Amino acid sequence: MRWTDTLIPTLRDDPLEAEIASHKLMLRAGLIRKLAGGLYTFLPLGLRALRKVERIAREEMDRAGALEILMPALQPREIWEQSKRYAVMGETMYRLQDRQKRDLVLGPTHEEVVTDLVSREISSYRQLPKIFYQIQAKFRDEIRPRFGLMRAREFIMKDAYSFDVSMEAADASYQRMYNAYRRIFDRCGLTTRIVEADTGAMGGKLSHEFMALADSGEDGLVECDSCSCAANLERAERGFLPTPLFPDAGESPLVVPTPGARTIEQVAAFFGCEPRRLIKTILYLVKGEPVAVLAPGDREINEHKLARALETADVTMADPRAIETVTGAAVGFAGPVGLQAPIYADTALKGYAGAISGANRTDAHMTRVCLERDVRVAGYLDLCAARDGDPCPRCNGKLREKRGIEVGHVFKLGAKYSDAFGASYVPDDGRRRAMVMGCYGIGVTRTLQAVIEQNHDDKGINWPMSVAPYHAVVLVLNPAHAASLQTAQDLAQNLDASGVETVLDDRNDRPGVKFADADLIGFPLRVVVSERSLAKNSVELKQRTQPSPELVPIADAARSVGDIVHARS
Amino acid sequence: MRWTDTLIPTLRDDPLEAEIASHKLMLRAGLIRKLAGGLYTFLPLGLRALRKVERIAREEMDRAGALEILMPALQPREIWEQSKRYAVMGETMYRLQDRQKRDLVLGPTHEEVVTDLVSREISSYRQLPKIFYQIQAKFRDEIRPRFGLMRAREFIMKDAYSFDVSMEAADASYQRMYNAYRRIFDRCGLTTRIVEADTGAMGGKLSHEFMALADSGEDGLVECDSCSCAANLERAERGFLPTPLFPDAGESPLVVPTPGARTIEQVAAFFGCEPRRLIKTILYLVKGEPVAVLAPGDREINEHKLARALETADVTMADPRAIETVTGAAVGFAGPVGLQAPIYADTALKGYAGAISGANRTDAHMTRVCLERDVRVAGYLDLCAARDGDPCPRCNGKLREKRGIEVGHVFKLGAKYSDAFGASYVPDDGRRRAMVMGCYGIGVTRTLQAVIEQNHDDKGINWPMSVAPYHAVVLVLNPAHAASLQTAQDLAQNLDASGVETVLDDRNDRPGVKFADADLIGFPLRVVVSERSLAKNSVELKQRTQPSPELVPIADAARSVGDIVHARS
Repeated sequence: MRWTDTLIPTLRDDPLEAEIASHKLMLRAGLIRKLAGGLYTFLPLGLRALRKVERIAREEMDRAGALEILMPALQPREIWEQSKRYAVMGETMYRLQDRQKRDLVLGPTHEEVVTDLVSREISSYRQLPKIFYQIQAKFRDEIRPRFGLMRAREFIMKDAYSFDVSMEAADASYQRMYNAYRRIFDRCGLTTRIVEADTGAMGGKLSHEFMALADSGEDGLVECDSCSCAANLERAERGFLPTPLFPDAGESPLVVPTPGARTIEQVAAFFGCEPRRLIKTILYLVKGEPVAVLAPGDREINEHKLARALETADVTMADPRAIETVTGAAVGFAGPVGLQAPIYADTALKGYAGAISGANRTDAHMTRVCLERDVRVAGYLDLCAARDGDPCPRCNGKLREKRGIEVGHVFKLGAKYSDAFGASYVPDDGRRRAMVMGCYGIGVTRTLQAVIEQNHDDKGINWPMSVAPYHAVVLVLNPAHAASLQTAQDLAQNLDASGVETVLDDRNDRPGVKFADADLIGFPLRVVVSERSLAKNSVELKQRTQPSPELVPIADAARSVGDIVHARS
Repeated sequence: MRWTDTLIPTLRDDPLEAEIASHKLMLRAGLIRKLAGGLYTFLPLGLRALRKVERIAREEMDRAGALEILMPALQPREIWEQSKRYAVMGETMYRLQDRQKRDLVLGPTHEEVVTDLVSREISSYRQLPKIFYQIQAKFRDEIRPRFGLMRAREFIMKDAYSFDVSMEAADASYQRMYNAYRRIFDRCGLTTRIVEADTGAMGGKLSHEFMALADSGEDGLVECDSCSCAANLERAERGFLPTPLFPDAGESPLVVPTPGARTIEQVAAFFGCEPRRLIKTILYLVKGEPVAVLAPGDREINEHKLARALETADVTMADPRAIETVTGAAVGFAGPVGLQAPIYADTALKGYAGAISGANRTDAHMTRVCLERDVRVAGYLDLCAARDGDPCPRCNGKLREKRGIEVGHVFKLGAKYSDAFGASYVPDDGRRRAMVMGCYGIGVTRTLQAVIEQNHDDKGINWPMSVAPYHAVVLVLNPAHAASLQTAQDLAQNLDASGVETVLDDRNDRPGVKFADADLIGFPLRVVVSERSLAKNSVELKQRTQPSPELVPIADAARSVGDIVHARS
């Protein structure tokens, strides 16, 4: 492909709209363009790379025995009512009406459609197991679309759904998908961590996320520095934390005026103590009723962990008015002693004595608090987010905190959807039973961007060969020099014919511009044809990953390039 | 692929929801399933065939130098306001709001997005010409979705857009796409006619439709039996029609009471004359003002032709109240003599004398009408649809009426969109000028169904090799017979390895069911492995198009099948 025949609108400067490296690079290298917030057009180069990620996903799905289908993006309201998710999906799901005023939605995911399909088309255990997948545009009305393809409103997803006769069989399907996902991300050149994760609106019993490690990632995770334990921060457990010893427990709590000291920092400064000596008291409404949750002053309560520990999704922070009603004090002075509400404490507080808390009086705190002596704690639960340095719950190692981009997610769903849609089968010998399901998703467009986030330097993208839009660029230093242009054209043609996808940079631009663009776009291989190299009957060959080029005889160039592409593919 | 590992839910009976053969067959052969009106899921076999049509379209687009991109389906209202089509698209365009209450639409087509893109990214004549295309789901809220994929609410389209420096250059791009479309439909095994067509809501100056001929087609077309002239009925011109001679012109019209005779049939019966002696008088509102349009009693006025002849899109039938106000009579008795409205007549009425029309009095008609003597005709225009047997407008041939399925449409757009979006370029020497555009569309899903509509018999589908979901089925007559199953498995594996896409029918079903399914699905090649054939060290090979099988030695079977696939691809 000649550069001048395609459209590669590279940008010299970082676009204002982009915050993270991969987003800047996708715009600067001319891979995508923004139509509106969270809506992007793929330009020729971006689409080529995207198709390669899709192809890798397709090959691994097929290899795992999954069957490709294609379901509508537009879906009738009724099936979402049937799964009871029409309300649950909230504002994230786009809703619209057709000309007959019938309600439709734009599919954010396809459990409903596929389970409805399977309930009609599969009825015998002989037809199971089955895994269906599709690669298709999904739509989600994100509160805050950002980071380019990372959090877009329309994006390409590879989603898959498994149907099995039993939990054990479903576990095997889950493992097949899990393994296929590992291969997919490996082949895309991504470094991922597989972490235990929350199931959220999807429901189900167990899930794993595939996290592409990146400092810019929106998700937090911890992994043990010693064993294989890893989890999303929303879910991560910690090992046992030893109880710190504080002086001055006294015989009973003591109220101390602390005018104006509301925050942990202010109170710790007032008492001249470490923040962890404070007991943070947060009021939540759980199913509408006030519940107090306690944490050490230096830790944060994680609402996902709290909701899971209390076994309900109906957990919200209490508003100031509710706090004042329950504590009888202004916001900032809540404490557990004498509080009229059920009280749950993080396990790290077990044995706390001589601690400091709010006094349920405005402008006052309480010292000498001993939880076991002074407070009726309904339960010690794992409520605070794990953090760097915490002990691993499974071994003697320490947890390390990392950031990641969620590129894949696998769920064990159980029978939630098969029950709702009557997706069942008749065993050889018995009564009709619900199929056991799993669902599996890869954010294909997000994966593409994660590859760039992990593979770039200050000059531009550094594509893995497997997903590079083109393998090589043949750069004619001076297209006005007929012999250069001819040699470059012949070489590009030979490369294309041998399966090396090649762009011929035939632009009448300064060499500096062309070199910079080659690095920015990140072609894995660059061949430069110049008058100087031609004088030596050679061309200059350089890999994007290497510091400097080497001279290669023209006659050997196509073979050399082909060998490298082959070796790195 | 083993039959039992995939999902091919064939149906014995015609589904009630389907009216035309291809729709019935797509359901019966297990290619698609309906989710809701106009919304279909592609099952594994249907998706394979669809991908082949897509691949053919992609190859021919690439060969023609078009660049593949991918634009969002979700689009902001603003760009549709900019092209002034937000209102024009009416209820056909799905509209929705995001959580910030901003208006969005689901793209029924992409002129707006692509022209906006080009206006930002291309500014020099050196970057032109360019043709962009995409293959993507489109959304249209059809009044009456029907015939399966023929008129669906979500469907796959291959759309393309050309940008050129001049009308002449745009003509060349148009011709490139026109030729590419011919190749695409040829390769898909479709018999098409290319007809002149209306430009409709797309705007622009000239367009051609690619019509797959089929009796069930929703579109009418005429083509000359002698020259290459062909057009959509909405646009087709006719050659000169000789004026019929009627007796009894008299000296002036004569009012005759015709109580209860309103329709052409009733009036012709009353007078005992041919319908064509009657002058049909239809009242329209053109830009809100009444206009009378005359046609011979045996012909229909075509509103598309009328609108084009009057150079406005604002043409609607007058309602009964307006008719009564203008004619002073009940509906059914309008006539041109003395009518207070501008009067246009179809050219076939030129020279009409001794004709019969309404009298603008309830229950009365008028005989002895001579148009030139009695009526002030504002213009004789080509207003009636052409029909079978009409003279060709270009040669001495006769027009033949056919039905067709519109599978492709190419438009010369001029500068309508480039003006709206400022898509312009600076020539070497001069002032900024608007780009000249063309747009081009293939209904990919509709094309797939048209292939079936044209290629089936009473047993099922008869796929062209190029788009068949699989090339061959290897049918094991009795899977319980170990040698049969082993031979069939080996053969299927050999075929797959040699690039022949094969299904191994390993079901424990009666041979009759398996033979019927093979014909229904329409595998181009069928190989039967039976105990009887194995006794002769052979298998039975049959092409779907041939009446009977031939015995082929097992050792030669893979090569024979491969040769046929190769020859027919």
